[in-house]
Amino acid sequence: MSRSVAILGLGLIGGSLLRRLGAAGQPGYDADPETRDAARAAGFTVADTVAEAVRMADLVIVAVPLPAMPGLLAEVGKAARPGTLLTDMASVKGPVAELVAGPVRFVGGHPMAGTEKSGFAAADPQLFDGAVWVLCLEEETDLAGWLELAALVTSIGARVLPTTSEAHDAAVARISHLPHLLAAALTQVADEPLARSLAAGSFRDGTRVAGTRPELSTAMCRGNRNALRLALAEAVQKLTEAGEALDRDDLEPFFRAGYDLRSSWPVADTEPVTLDPTSATLRTELLALGGTGGWLTSVGNGSLEGRRPRP
Amino acid sequence: MSRSVAILGLGLIGGSLLRRLGAAGQPGYDADPETRDAARAAGFTVADTVAEAVRMADLVIVAVPLPAMPGLLAEVGKAARPGTLLTDMASVKGPVAELVAGPVRFVGGHPMAGTEKSGFAAADPQLFDGAVWVLCLEEETDLAGWLELAALVTSIGARVLPTTSEAHDAAVARISHLPHLLAAALTQVADEPLARSLAAGSFRDGTRVAGTRPELSTAMCRGNRNALRLALAEAVQKLTEAGEALDRDDLEPFFRAGYDLRSSWPVADTEPVTLDPTSATLRTELLALGGTGGWLTSVGNGSLEGRRPRP
Repeated sequence: MSRSVAILGLGLIGGSLLRRLGAAGQPGYDADPETRDAARAAGFTVADTVAEAVRMADLVIVAVPLPAMPGLLAEVGKAARPGTLLTDMASVKGPVAELVAGPVRFVGGHPMAGTEKSGFAAADPQLFDGAVWVLCLEEETDLAGWLELAALVTSIGARVLPTTSEAHDAAVARISHLPHLLAAALTQVADEPLARSLAAGSFRDGTRVAGTRPELSTAMCRGNRNALRLALAEAVQKLTEAGEALDRDDLEPFFRAGYDLRSSWPVADTEPVTLDPTSATLRTELLALGGTGGWLTSVGNGSLEGRRPRP
Repeated sequence: MSRSVAILGLGLIGGSLLRRLGAAGQPGYDADPETRDAARAAGFTVADTVAEAVRMADLVIVAVPLPAMPGLLAEVGKAARPGTLLTDMASVKGPVAELVAGPVRFVGGHPMAGTEKSGFAAADPQLFDGAVWVLCLEEETDLAGWLELAALVTSIGARVLPTTSEAHDAAVARISHLPHLLAAALTQVADEPLARSLAAGSFRDGTRVAGTRPELSTAMCRGNRNALRLALAEAVQKLTEAGEALDRDDLEPFFRAGYDLRSSWPVADTEPVTLDPTSATLRTELLALGGTGGWLTSVGNGSLEGRRPRP
């Protein structure tokens, strides 16, 4: 990428991306002066204001927690030059899209990478290696801008999954937000001295994300309330059925269904896909690829290469 | 230990113990001829029948899955010499105690160690390093036998937690069996192509134990039905409350409660405890130690040393 990229927000996610791209001298910005100092001390170029970072950038990547998003996107909208490509890295996509302002070309993004840690100190340039990175393709999305971003994302080793913000939010409610609710509930049900001393591997893994900062989990779930409500209701229904199956001593089908699904994840049986970037129906083809759980691995001028789960 | 120890069942747990004790030439046994061959090929002494293994042993350790327990404990009861010390390593303690037969001194046991893997090939002599190992102390338990076992278990680096089978079963319902139900439910709620491709760390950890063989999870939960029913009802209640909190945009206290508990686990703030093995009230003192989540780290003739969470 010969373009100028500004990364706003240098926590775990933005900091990791800065560390990955920073060798090319791309500037960063963070609202926290200590974080700015830490990033400068680590050798990166850091602007002192949002406007300073955004003014020079062709591509602005917003990597702040959801509560900071409204204020920051308003600032970006004021400072951005017309046509500036703007993306974000937040875990919900519908609510972020509604906040975008100014003369920008916006593409919602979400790298499926992260840990329960946070902050620039935890940033890791390898965080996105092989990770799936959602780039939202809505009816109004500028396709050329989407392809530019997809080229950047695949160039750092991530896999670009094209989908809509609505489909994204429904899926992450199930695979990310619901696990946070389950982990917090499990931790509380086990709040007893003997249980806490006996707790080992299944408790450790089942509650890991309960270690996420509560304000982040809360903001994430609040931003995806409707989809999460559905996913939670399904989980409660499954658990209620499991209780009934336990009563009639017929729990094995419940565990077998989980076992079969977990044993075949992550999806390993995939087939290659090639798309023509000049196709008149490219938008539809990309969304169809994402709908099957497929992704792009390389985005060139001549062709788009990817893989999808074998049907 | 100069005593002769027989380990019956050479899967992950029994095989790991054999590998840990095997250098001392302790014999093993497994119902599966291929597992016996694998253990012999790895250099261990392996008997061809239960009776052969049990006949010579002062201590018999039963490490088979729950479904195999009734038949095996009946066989052990027939072959054991009077006074033989018998323990098991199963994940529920009440139902196993009811199956014990013959002239044995029984002490129910449960090392809190394991993975979603199974089989002798996965056995690891370091599996129990630092692990909590429950040894049940009931009114009818032979205290001398309990102390002998506690000495063996602490000698291989595990921590002995004294409790009753009833308290154990209530606790593991919360920290082990409930996580298996949550993991299986989560895996099923996320059964959708896009969700499966987006799933990353929080899904991976939250569903790890869904990879346990379904017949093992089923047997484990079946054996602890009553306690698990209670724990499951509490979890469903917590999740229902979380849904209501989400509706009224007040989810942070729910996540904060989970965060505070998870951040203070595993329990790190402990204080030393010394018990006198000749105390007339030793049984009560040991159970009080376990009730606070405390454990023994060394069992000598002169004193019992341990630690407990600081109040």
